[in-house]
Amino acid sequence: MANNEVILLDFWPSMFGLRLRIALAEKEVKYEYREEDLPNKSPLLLQMNPIHKKIPVLIHNGKPICESIIGVEYIDEVWKDKAPFLPSDPYERAQARFWADYIDKKFYWATRKLWTTKGEELEAAKEEFIVCLKVLEGALGDKPYFGGDNFGFVDIALIGFYCWFSTYETYGNFSTEAESPKFVAWAKRCMQRDSVAKSSPDQHKVLKFVKVVRQRLGIE
Amino acid sequence: MANNEVILLDFWPSMFGLRLRIALAEKEVKYEYREEDLPNKSPLLLQMNPIHKKIPVLIHNGKPICESIIGVEYIDEVWKDKAPFLPSDPYERAQARFWADYIDKKFYWATRKLWTTKGEELEAAKEEFIVCLKVLEGALGDKPYFGGDNFGFVDIALIGFYCWFSTYETYGNFSTEAESPKFVAWAKRCMQRDSVAKSSPDQHKVLKFVKVVRQRLGIE
Repeated sequence: MANNEVILLDFWPSMFGLRLRIALAEKEVKYEYREEDLPNKSPLLLQMNPIHKKIPVLIHNGKPICESIIGVEYIDEVWKDKAPFLPSDPYERAQARFWADYIDKKFYWATRKLWTTKGEELEAAKEEFIVCLKVLEGALGDKPYFGGDNFGFVDIALIGFYCWFSTYETYGNFSTEAESPKFVAWAKRCMQRDSVAKSSPDQHKVLKFVKVVRQRLGIE
Repeated sequence: MANNEVILLDFWPSMFGLRLRIALAEKEVKYEYREEDLPNKSPLLLQMNPIHKKIPVLIHNGKPICESIIGVEYIDEVWKDKAPFLPSDPYERAQARFWADYIDKKFYWATRKLWTTKGEELEAAKEEFIVCLKVLEGALGDKPYFGGDNFGFVDIALIGFYCWFSTYETYGNFSTEAESPKFVAWAKRCMQRDSVAKSSPDQHKVLKFVKVVRQRLGIE
């Protein structure tokens, strides 16, 4: 495809931005990465995402695509000859979209509470998070990836969270491996892919960042 | 397509169920409608949507598709030869998905607050709702439909709310026509379609239903 200028407005610890970084790496698309300073958003971000004013924004030939899952699907449709993310069967596509939606609607909010709450609220969050992990393990089943034998849409939607797992475990005081060993085996399998390993920040760097955010929010 | 058994588990005032009713009508798909008693959900609903336990659920040849927007996209992909909902261009598809997502993430919650809150909270909800209407009017622009010249994905995602507008106006104490005349003109245009008119309950029937719900919730 000619005239392929791709820019990603992002913020390094974002699991949503990470989806797009992984998707672009899977498709071997070259792009310009622009780190945003969230307390001081760039005029370009505000212009490209006037509705939500959030990262990540994928800008393809000057046109913005907002909301990370929509961006992953866009990347899949534009660079369609390489490593398809979504299955071709409509029912399997609907299932993949269902799980991506579950991750955004349930899983994400459960993870957030693990490092933004305390006491009883944190205990409830931990329970909710572990229920979500087990639901996701059930959806994975005995397959190597959510996409079956191939790394696909749901894998991309979910693996971006993995760099936050040290944070969840530290503040939630639990071991994911003890609770959901199949989930961890899946995550480690994904991390062996260049597209994931090279796009993901280190778990301890994320934990250090969250420590600062918690201090700023007055949680610790 | 052979062996096309389509069942819809639904509840008549649901704007989400209405999306599927309209989508199926647009594609001229025959289906069996099954009304759910929400305080006493059917074993079939619980079996078909064990994660969210919510209507609507589309069941196609025994297999469930949950979450209404995913169902609309599924219907578009399976019955693809008739009245396509999504544009073929990937960028326009991403835009359509963005607005459907906006309706679910922002607009729906703004509408809910119009009949479940009181006092200052209701005043804030009203402001939020009118901002949402104007954002949607901006996305519509001067086109007859969100899908351009053709009734499409975003139109289906949004028009299901129209049968609730008497409810919003009654409890919010405002006139949508005064606030957003282009929105109302669009809604009336959609209502001229058989697929929409025949699937939508009467606005006053919805208002009567909401009155009962409010009494049950102790709001009035």
